[in-house]
Amino acid sequence: MRDIILGIDVGGTNIKLGLVNPGGQIFSRSRIVTKDHTAPKELIKALIGEITNLLKINQLEKKQVKGIGIGLPGLIDVEKGIVKLLPNIAGWRDVPLEKILRQSLDMEIRLENDVNMITLGEWRFGAGQGRKDLVCMTLGTGVGAGLILNDALYRGEGFAAGEIGHMPLNETGVVCSCGGVGCFERYVGNAALEKEASRIFNRSIKLEEVSQLAAKGEKRALAFWHEAGVRIGNGLTATVNLLNPRLIIIGGGVSNSHRFLFPAIRETIKARAMSVQGSMVRVVRAKLGSDAGIIGACVLLENESRHDG
Amino acid sequence: MRDIILGIDVGGTNIKLGLVNPGGQIFSRSRIVTKDHTAPKELIKALIGEITNLLKINQLEKKQVKGIGIGLPGLIDVEKGIVKLLPNIAGWRDVPLEKILRQSLDMEIRLENDVNMITLGEWRFGAGQGRKDLVCMTLGTGVGAGLILNDALYRGEGFAAGEIGHMPLNETGVVCSCGGVGCFERYVGNAALEKEASRIFNRSIKLEEVSQLAAKGEKRALAFWHEAGVRIGNGLTATVNLLNPRLIIIGGGVSNSHRFLFPAIRETIKARAMSVQGSMVRVVRAKLGSDAGIIGACVLLENESRHDG
Repeated sequence: MRDIILGIDVGGTNIKLGLVNPGGQIFSRSRIVTKDHTAPKELIKALIGEITNLLKINQLEKKQVKGIGIGLPGLIDVEKGIVKLLPNIAGWRDVPLEKILRQSLDMEIRLENDVNMITLGEWRFGAGQGRKDLVCMTLGTGVGAGLILNDALYRGEGFAAGEIGHMPLNETGVVCSCGGVGCFERYVGNAALEKEASRIFNRSIKLEEVSQLAAKGEKRALAFWHEAGVRIGNGLTATVNLLNPRLIIIGGGVSNSHRFLFPAIRETIKARAMSVQGSMVRVVRAKLGSDAGIIGACVLLENESRHDG
Repeated sequence: MRDIILGIDVGGTNIKLGLVNPGGQIFSRSRIVTKDHTAPKELIKALIGEITNLLKINQLEKKQVKGIGIGLPGLIDVEKGIVKLLPNIAGWRDVPLEKILRQSLDMEIRLENDVNMITLGEWRFGAGQGRKDLVCMTLGTGVGAGLILNDALYRGEGFAAGEIGHMPLNETGVVCSCGGVGCFERYVGNAALEKEASRIFNRSIKLEEVSQLAAKGEKRALAFWHEAGVRIGNGLTATVNLLNPRLIIIGGGVSNSHRFLFPAIRETIKARAMSVQGSMVRVVRAKLGSDAGIIGACVLLENESRHDG
């Protein structure tokens, strides 16, 4: 009966909790506002309280839940269960979160990077079902990716793989916060896209509005999304040629403009990538939306063998 | 006793054959000149003759050899045992080489892309021993790479992964023979490097000579290799950020200039890659030289499970 999973998606704004059944459906949810409890001690206390509460509301005992999977926006040592660094949540550096929660809750705990968690969710229950190789990219404030390679999540030697947003698009260009130059994210992250849109429309404008204008056929808006798609396609070409994936899944806020964006992405990859790689890759929209990070917990606890270091 | 492997490295100039013991040592060699027999029928006939001859010279019976691993310079369907395309050897398209040789020789046969074969050799017996993730790049006329990810060779969905030479270094630039624009190979392949060297020295000059001049401390030669190293480092940064490998092995002709080249590659990656990825990656020279492709056959037949499609 221990087939229920508790998935937790820690974001800079909200922490979302969800109870997930083996079919990947969330049947009960709750939420914490992140800024109310940023420091590790407080945030952990709030987490334990909310986990306990969610189980209680659903009349579940701990032993009826297989485990808790937590996606966090930063560098996670998955083997040791340590949060190495959360760049956008103050105070989180080298926190042994897995051990703390296991001792406190007496439940199975697994940590993972948030984009990897989304990738696991889309792979098993979303747009990537049945694939053995895929790239799952999130387009938003940050641009990241999770990699499923040879039928498993690929994390890299330092658990830092998938930084597609920091692959340089050009040798020279804007200096990035990562220390690099000309990073993909500096061209297609929300900040860069909004800046470009504001330049085109000669006023401060949000991407949602540009999408609404595009839906009405406004030419500058359509041209803007086309150009963004070309840029994204240029950036993805490197990954397509290197990894020869069958599938690229794109999620995140910007993917809501997929109608205007995806044709240009596909055309650009087809035109610029090598023939074998370019002809076989499909570019699709993520299916699970903002639930992917919670649902991914299911896969993390069911599928991923643990490497105790 | 069936622990001997016959490795074959098919190149555009020569086809090298070697008998390899389980320790990865080549104990007997032979060679065919490729241009004497390019068409599939003739080349296969020559191969069968030379294989038979090599076994005979060594007084080996077929049953004493575990199998034959063949690396070929092109696109190989490893599951079906078909040579899809050899761009530089005329007439090779969709040749079921594995089946033909198995029927003719009654021996175990495995095909693989040549750079993947080199990668397997370096992984098991060369510079990559004990690593579970590495990138093995060959720098020469072509620039390619083999990827060991999650402790296995990663081939991609269409067996075309590893095309590091066709990752764009810039959004605009020279149009490449692959159809892309600004490809890494167009900057650091032999042709591009020799062109740049000839420009600097104001005469036609080979890379070997530039290396000799650098060894004597000639300033333009040293600056040339430094600049090449910066370019290579720029190109590798994308792969380092995406895959977070512990090790990059560099082989091929240009790697002979490693004394002048590698410091600039390492510095550039350190400066441009993300901190976790850049600080943990090591860049080393390949160890097995031109034997890697033969020795890799050993790994292909011993380690790689077959997926009969």
